[in-house]
Amino acid sequence: MLDTIFRTQADQAGEAKPRTRTEQVMELIRQRIERRMLVPGARLPSVRAMAETSGFSKSTIVEAYDRLAAEGVIRAKAGAGFFVSAPLAPLALCEVEAPEAREIDPVWLLRQFHDEREGLINAGSGTLPQDWLAQESMGKALRGAARQVPLRGQSDLLGYEPMRMLISRRMAEQGVEASPDQILLTDSGTQALDLVCRFLLQPGDTVLLDDPCFFNFTALLRAHRARVVTVPMTPQGPDLVAFAEVVKREKPRLYITNSAMHNPTGATLSASHVHRVLKIAAEADMVIVEDDIFADFEMECSPRYASFDGLERVIRIGSFSKTASTAIRCGHIALRPDWVTPLADLRVVTAYMGNPLGAQLLVTMLTDGTYRHHMETLRRRLARARAKVGARLIGLGLRIWCEPQAGMSLWAQLPDGMDAAALAREAAREQVVLAPGVVFSPSGGWQDYLRINTVHGDDERFFAFLAKACAARKS
Amino acid sequence: MLDTIFRTQADQAGEAKPRTRTEQVMELIRQRIERRMLVPGARLPSVRAMAETSGFSKSTIVEAYDRLAAEGVIRAKAGAGFFVSAPLAPLALCEVEAPEAREIDPVWLLRQFHDEREGLINAGSGTLPQDWLAQESMGKALRGAARQVPLRGQSDLLGYEPMRMLISRRMAEQGVEASPDQILLTDSGTQALDLVCRFLLQPGDTVLLDDPCFFNFTALLRAHRARVVTVPMTPQGPDLVAFAEVVKREKPRLYITNSAMHNPTGATLSASHVHRVLKIAAEADMVIVEDDIFADFEMECSPRYASFDGLERVIRIGSFSKTASTAIRCGHIALRPDWVTPLADLRVVTAYMGNPLGAQLLVTMLTDGTYRHHMETLRRRLARARAKVGARLIGLGLRIWCEPQAGMSLWAQLPDGMDAAALAREAAREQVVLAPGVVFSPSGGWQDYLRINTVHGDDERFFAFLAKACAARKS
Repeated sequence: MLDTIFRTQADQAGEAKPRTRTEQVMELIRQRIERRMLVPGARLPSVRAMAETSGFSKSTIVEAYDRLAAEGVIRAKAGAGFFVSAPLAPLALCEVEAPEAREIDPVWLLRQFHDEREGLINAGSGTLPQDWLAQESMGKALRGAARQVPLRGQSDLLGYEPMRMLISRRMAEQGVEASPDQILLTDSGTQALDLVCRFLLQPGDTVLLDDPCFFNFTALLRAHRARVVTVPMTPQGPDLVAFAEVVKREKPRLYITNSAMHNPTGATLSASHVHRVLKIAAEADMVIVEDDIFADFEMECSPRYASFDGLERVIRIGSFSKTASTAIRCGHIALRPDWVTPLADLRVVTAYMGNPLGAQLLVTMLTDGTYRHHMETLRRRLARARAKVGARLIGLGLRIWCEPQAGMSLWAQLPDGMDAAALAREAAREQVVLAPGVVFSPSGGWQDYLRINTVHGDDERFFAFLAKACAARKS
Repeated sequence: MLDTIFRTQADQAGEAKPRTRTEQVMELIRQRIERRMLVPGARLPSVRAMAETSGFSKSTIVEAYDRLAAEGVIRAKAGAGFFVSAPLAPLALCEVEAPEAREIDPVWLLRQFHDEREGLINAGSGTLPQDWLAQESMGKALRGAARQVPLRGQSDLLGYEPMRMLISRRMAEQGVEASPDQILLTDSGTQALDLVCRFLLQPGDTVLLDDPCFFNFTALLRAHRARVVTVPMTPQGPDLVAFAEVVKREKPRLYITNSAMHNPTGATLSASHVHRVLKIAAEADMVIVEDDIFADFEMECSPRYASFDGLERVIRIGSFSKTASTAIRCGHIALRPDWVTPLADLRVVTAYMGNPLGAQLLVTMLTDGTYRHHMETLRRRLARARAKVGARLIGLGLRIWCEPQAGMSLWAQLPDGMDAAALAREAAREQVVLAPGVVFSPSGGWQDYLRINTVHGDDERFFAFLAKACAARKS
């Protein structure tokens, strides 16, 4: 088969008249990489096999491989042959190699978070463990659903209407006016953001992110072939001088951010920041995407772009995966009325209907009082965890960047300019998963920071590891 | 705010030096359309308002609007002003107008299918009504899940492992060898296809579709900015002469098709078609995506691309939404081992983890015997429905294109060259939803065909409408 492929491609290449036989072979390999028939990490056919199937001489193949290696498209491994080294551009998310060779990047971190080996301490993850979530509420909702069979399928293109009504009411309590017809349900908060990017971005568009920010924003934007520019974060919101400057210079189409409980810093937006950022955005005709999936953790509602703006140029994304259950996924988007229909159409075409059962279960949980009760308990529990872990980290010489008003995470600076990525590699060998700052930084900064999950962090083995590492650096 | 926007943009436009003031205004409007601040169907500011906010004279605005109208970007409606007419290129899925003004296109059809008004007969839909689905099995699974709380969240980046093991075994029964590690769970069959397109397509790539084919393939590919070419369908598979020719001429990167129970025709692939299509695909280094979501409807397993090829250049997509429950959505992709990791990474970055609860419920349904029992009953019930409805359609003068071996749909030709789209418009006024052939045809053909759902089609009001319409055409 390879034979046929290469002959056919050689014929085609012949039509385009590359100058030399070596260049023809190089083109064949490039085509196969571009078509993903050879993925990063894949071994190329041996020189002999390639010569036999392609009809070119062995010396031509050797020269082609050498030149591709010189270009960095492939690389030689002593005694093992040639391997594809080009990333999967432009959707490059990783190189497909042995897991331990993977770089410490967003996907590495995600994979670590979902490693469930016995004894692993997930001290960097951004989610709550099962027993901190609304399990009782969920059990009750499932029993209720079992009694309601036959369940309705999805009939509403915007998603289950009672859920949209409920979200509308809850948003009103947080000061955001959005009618149920301005709300579109999705399969997850991530899918919500992906959909908004699909709707508003063209390949090559510029997007503004906070530095640091939720690491998946960067990874997602790579899949959209977008260009990322950044603004430094302060404990009250983005640095306003830098914000005005970067918006003027780079003309980003979108600004994607978390407000209440900024991830990873725990920063809370001040009202004056909200006002000024909105003013700059209006002048530049820039849309703000407010990823507000931590909203329910707040004791008191802090300022929001969506509430000040009234969903004119702000798109608000929410989800219940962080608070209710990781077994149900149901995100939502609140946005301008005239964007609802085209976005709903795009959603149905690319993902069909949402998760009807998940929405139905959440409606039960959100209306029978069990979720509210769960959240009241959870907020108190998290406040205690933050205080306790914060004190212990300070005791070890770490600095807490700002004291979060709510949520599960602390953004902490290691002492003496320690390199957090190096520490994370070391930790992984001792079955402790850390989230180093650089993963959250599109600019590659924040190298001595860690995001620490205070629920996992309250663990003696974790603190013993950290204490030992800090002591080793000092000596 | 508008004021600020226009001044800023006018300043920017000034830098680029468009020749005239009219051209500056035109550029402002074009920018706002491109940025989706003005969506298709939206009314432009009045000439007076635009003049006031932009600082240009009314005559300049009038001239700019007129020239944009001449270009077809906007259009005047007598007495109502100017409206954006440009589609949301390149993701153009619809124009945002009054629903009755929408064209009969894939999204129109999807919206009709999900209209749940009392008394509406969904004679064209491609899904089963709730009471034909596995409700008992689902109820039992829900009660079981309620007893298992706390439920596990998603920890496996490929999706719930027991579900992948089950799919692997079921595929083996259908002759497709795929280890659980070659299977990736998704939120739906549609999302599975979307993900594969994201992974393998670049904007501008060519994709080959059957004519006719499932209408959403066309809509989805538009969202991927892909170019579509087609091959005519025959009752044994794609027309082989045309297939070889179009592949040679157009060099498509993908061929997307349904095999067993081709949608909408009900065609069943012959073994020789599978062999020859795979041979042509290998010669052209083309990947085949086999959307096999109707597999479980079959009484006997018909030939498949995936089983002949062994997942070398075939990607197989499946789902249980058509047979088990529309309230749970859980699709899957089976593919080459070296594509699994990059696709899983792309999936987690763009949609996060799948639907863990849905996968857990399906595992229960698929292992406790209730789903198998349900399918045995359902297959017999559908065979009776097809026979009965087929006979009645023939009695009215329609022709069945091929007799499907399984499934819920019939692909029927109206008598005397009747226009199915016109009939569908007429039917909509009498609360009957029809699926006209042209919606399934990327080339705009098959104009006198209907896809008829035999479960909805067994309805006196539907047949009375059809009889009356056929009689009216004859007289």
